[in-house]
Amino acid sequence: MRRAWGTGVLVATLAAPAAGRERIDMLVSGGTVITMDGGGRVVEDGAVAVRAGGIVAVGRSADLLARYEAARTVDATGRLVLPGLVNTHTHAPMTLFRGVAEDLELMEWLEEHIWPAERANVTPEFVAWGTRLAAWEMIRSGTTTFADMYFYEDEVAAAAKEAGLRAVCAATVIDFPVPGSKNADEALAAAESFLRRWRDDGLVVPAVGPHAPYSVSPENLRRARDLAERHRAPLLIHAAESKAEVETVRSRFGVSSVAHLDRLGLLGPRTLLAHAIWLSDEDVLTLRARDVGVGHCPQSNMKIAAGVAPVPRLRRAGVRLGLGTDGPASNNDLSLFEEIDTALKLQKMATGDPKALTAREAVEMATIGGARALHLEDRIGSLEEGKRADLVVVSLEAPSAIPLYDVYAHLAYAIKGSDVETVMVEGRLLMEGRRMLTLDTAAIAARARELQRQVARSLGR
Amino acid sequence: MRRAWGTGVLVATLAAPAAGRERIDMLVSGGTVITMDGGGRVVEDGAVAVRAGGIVAVGRSADLLARYEAARTVDATGRLVLPGLVNTHTHAPMTLFRGVAEDLELMEWLEEHIWPAERANVTPEFVAWGTRLAAWEMIRSGTTTFADMYFYEDEVAAAAKEAGLRAVCAATVIDFPVPGSKNADEALAAAESFLRRWRDDGLVVPAVGPHAPYSVSPENLRRARDLAERHRAPLLIHAAESKAEVETVRSRFGVSSVAHLDRLGLLGPRTLLAHAIWLSDEDVLTLRARDVGVGHCPQSNMKIAAGVAPVPRLRRAGVRLGLGTDGPASNNDLSLFEEIDTALKLQKMATGDPKALTAREAVEMATIGGARALHLEDRIGSLEEGKRADLVVVSLEAPSAIPLYDVYAHLAYAIKGSDVETVMVEGRLLMEGRRMLTLDTAAIAARARELQRQVARSLGR
Repeated sequence: MRRAWGTGVLVATLAAPAAGRERIDMLVSGGTVITMDGGGRVVEDGAVAVRAGGIVAVGRSADLLARYEAARTVDATGRLVLPGLVNTHTHAPMTLFRGVAEDLELMEWLEEHIWPAERANVTPEFVAWGTRLAAWEMIRSGTTTFADMYFYEDEVAAAAKEAGLRAVCAATVIDFPVPGSKNADEALAAAESFLRRWRDDGLVVPAVGPHAPYSVSPENLRRARDLAERHRAPLLIHAAESKAEVETVRSRFGVSSVAHLDRLGLLGPRTLLAHAIWLSDEDVLTLRARDVGVGHCPQSNMKIAAGVAPVPRLRRAGVRLGLGTDGPASNNDLSLFEEIDTALKLQKMATGDPKALTAREAVEMATIGGARALHLEDRIGSLEEGKRADLVVVSLEAPSAIPLYDVYAHLAYAIKGSDVETVMVEGRLLMEGRRMLTLDTAAIAARARELQRQVARSLGR
Repeated sequence: MRRAWGTGVLVATLAAPAAGRERIDMLVSGGTVITMDGGGRVVEDGAVAVRAGGIVAVGRSADLLARYEAARTVDATGRLVLPGLVNTHTHAPMTLFRGVAEDLELMEWLEEHIWPAERANVTPEFVAWGTRLAAWEMIRSGTTTFADMYFYEDEVAAAAKEAGLRAVCAATVIDFPVPGSKNADEALAAAESFLRRWRDDGLVVPAVGPHAPYSVSPENLRRARDLAERHRAPLLIHAAESKAEVETVRSRFGVSSVAHLDRLGLLGPRTLLAHAIWLSDEDVLTLRARDVGVGHCPQSNMKIAAGVAPVPRLRRAGVRLGLGTDGPASNNDLSLFEEIDTALKLQKMATGDPKALTAREAVEMATIGGARALHLEDRIGSLEEGKRADLVVVSLEAPSAIPLYDVYAHLAYAIKGSDVETVMVEGRLLMEGRRMLTLDTAAIAARARELQRQVARSLGR
C-alpha cells in the first residue's frame, strides 16, 4: 500500500486499487440475504463479497457491485442467500446402513442389526465411502458444517475435506471393542494421533468423542477430557438421550448424566452434548454455567422414542443450542431443513403451545445456533464481514416455495433440501445450480450399492 | 372375439389378437412394483399394463412384454413404481396463504390473519389459481388423489380436472358468512347444484362438506346429511380436532363430537372425518361400526398443537385410515411423503413405543388406506388389475435414496417428494421425468406471486 498525499486519497486508493474497484474472488449478488447476524439483518437485492475464503462485505448489491471487481459472480436474483446450515450431531458413514432395520426397540435394533452389521462391515474404506455419500447428501440439502462421531474418524475427516465440507470430527472413545479399537486405551491412543494429524487444518476441527456416560467408565471419561484439554480440542458426547440412560447413571453414580459428566470435568466451553433430553432444571443451569453446547436431534429423538428435549427451557436459560440429524440409520436422512420443521412441530405438540418455538428461532438453531453449540460462532453461522464464506443459495422456483410472505417462516416450514441450488464453503463452490463440483457422484452411488449388497449378505439376507 | 376350434386356441386368440400381442395404451416396465395389494405383493423387474385409463395387468416385465403391445412405454428400470398417493384432507387453494402468519394461537391465527385474508381475497379466480398451484405441488410430490374442502369448490374441481388429478371435492356448508355464501341456506343450495354439475365425472367426485360440529348447527348438519344421502355423495367433515372443540360440543349437546355426529346421522359408509384426535374408546367403536373413514393429518396436528390422533387404536379397531396434509397454510406443504415420515415418528414419540406403527403400515395409510378412508378402494389405492391406472414412479438416484434395503422403510423414511419422477392418473401422464405435462407452471407461478402481493396489501403489509 502506497502512502498518498492525503487521507481522502489514501482511502480511495485502499478501496479501489485496480480499475477503480477492489478485487475479490467472488460476489454472490441479487438475492435476499438473510444474514442471521445479531441484528437479524435481511438485505433485499443483497450481496456477499468473498475473498480468500472469507466474507469481506455484506450489503446491497448496487453498493457492492460499485465497490468490488469480482473474479466470479453467482447470480442469486429471485433467490434466498443464507449461512450454510450446521449439523451439530451425526454419524455420517452410517448412510450405508440407512434403512437396514426399522421399527424396533432400541436395544433390539442395535444388538441384532446395527452392531453385527458394523462388526462385519466397517473398515476404513467403508467409512470413506459412507462419508462421501453423506457429503453428497449434505451438500445437496444445504449443510456446510457437520459434527461427526464414528469409527476410523480419520477417513471421515479426509472425505469431508475432499468434498470441501467443514467438519468437527470426533474420534470415538468407548470401553468395549468396536471397529478400529479393542478397548479405550487403543481408542485414546488413536484419538491422540488423530488430533495431532488434523491440528492445523482449515476445514476439519479434530475432536474427542467419548461415546456416552453409560458406555465409557469415569476413568476413561477423565482421560478423554484430559486429552481434549491438552489439545484444546472440542469434546463431543451423547448424554441424557434416554430415560434408561439417566436411570442407569443415577443407579451407578447417584446423580444425573449431566451432573456425572460435570463432576468428572467433562463440561466446559469446548463441549457439545448430543440429544440432552432428560434434564432437570439444575442440569440446564449447569449446561449454561459451563458454557456447553447442545445438539438437538428432533427427528431421531422421535423415531427412537427417546423423549422430547426441553428446547424452550434450554433457550430461556441461554444454553448454546443447535440442531442435528443424528446418523442416517436413525432419521433416515441428513436434511437440516426437515429438522428445522420437525423441531418446531415437536415443541408445539409437546408443550401444547404454538408459540413454544418460532420459525426464526428454529432457523437460528440450524445456523448461528449450531455454530454457537460447536463454539465456532466467531467463524461461521452468519453472513458477516470477517466470517468464513460458508453460504447457500436457495431457489424459490418449486411450487412448494410459492408464495413467500416471510423469509423465516418460509425457510422453516416450506423450503426443502431439494430447493438448495448453490453451496459454498470457505469461498469454494461445492454445488452450483444443483451440479456437484467436488464429488464423483456416479462412483459414490455405484460403490454404495455394492456395499449395500455386502451388508445385506453379512446379515444373512 | 371369434370362436375357434378348441379352448387352447381360444385362449391364445384372446391373449394375442394382433401381431401376436394384445394392444394396450401404456406399459410401465422394469421397475420394482410395490402393489400395496392385499397380499403385499412386490414385483422385482415388474410392469403395469394400462388400457383405457385402467390397469389390465401387473406382473413381471418379461411376461407383460410378451403379452402386450404398448402404444407407449415408460421405462422404470432402477426405480420404484407404486400406487399414486392419496391425500384425504386438504384445502388446496390455501397454497396462496402459505406462511402468511405463523406461530400463533389457533384463534388468533384465524381471526386476525386467515379469516381477514380470506374475506378480502377469496374469489372464484383466487380459488382456481390456488388450486392450480396446489395441483402442481401435489403432482410433483406423487399425489394422484386429494380430498378437498373449501369455498367456490366448483373452481377446485375444475382446476383439479384440468390438471388431470383425481379429487373428492366437498362444497363447504357452514353457518356463518364465508366467501361464496352468506349462510347455510345459500351454502346448501350451492352444494346441491355443485353435486348435480359434477355427478358423472370420471375424475372428480363431488361431495358435501359441513365444516365442523362447532360451526354448523344440528339442523344444518342434518340438512347436509340429507343432501349427501339424496345424491349418494361423500360427506367430509372436520371432527374431534381439538380438545376445545370436544369440550364445546359436550357442553352444548352433552356428548362427544363423534357421538353428536352419530346422533344426527352423519356417520355412514360415505363419511370421512378429518383429524379425529380426541376420541374415546366408544367413539372409535362407533367409527368402525358406521364404516367411517378417518383422515389423519400428523404435521398439521403437531403444528397447531391440536393433539395426537390415536392411530394404533384406530388401526386395531379396523377403522378406515388415511393420511392428509391439511391446508398448506397449516403444514406448510402438500407432500404426503413427509406425512408418512411424520406419522411414524409422531406415534413412536407419543406412545414411547418404536413399534407403535411400522413403515409398511404408514405407506399403506398413504395409498390403499387413504383410498379406503375415502371409500374408493374399489377404484384406487393399489396396483391391481381392474383398478384405475393411478401410479407414480420414484427415482432412486438422489443420495438420500441410496442404499435401499427395504422398500417400505425406504418409502417411509428416505424418499422425498422431490424423488417422484413420473405421475399417471387414469392412464394419463401428468409428469414425466419431472417435466410437468398438464400445467402452465410459469403462468401459475407468476399469478401466484401477484396474488401474494394482493394478500399482503389486504393485510396492510
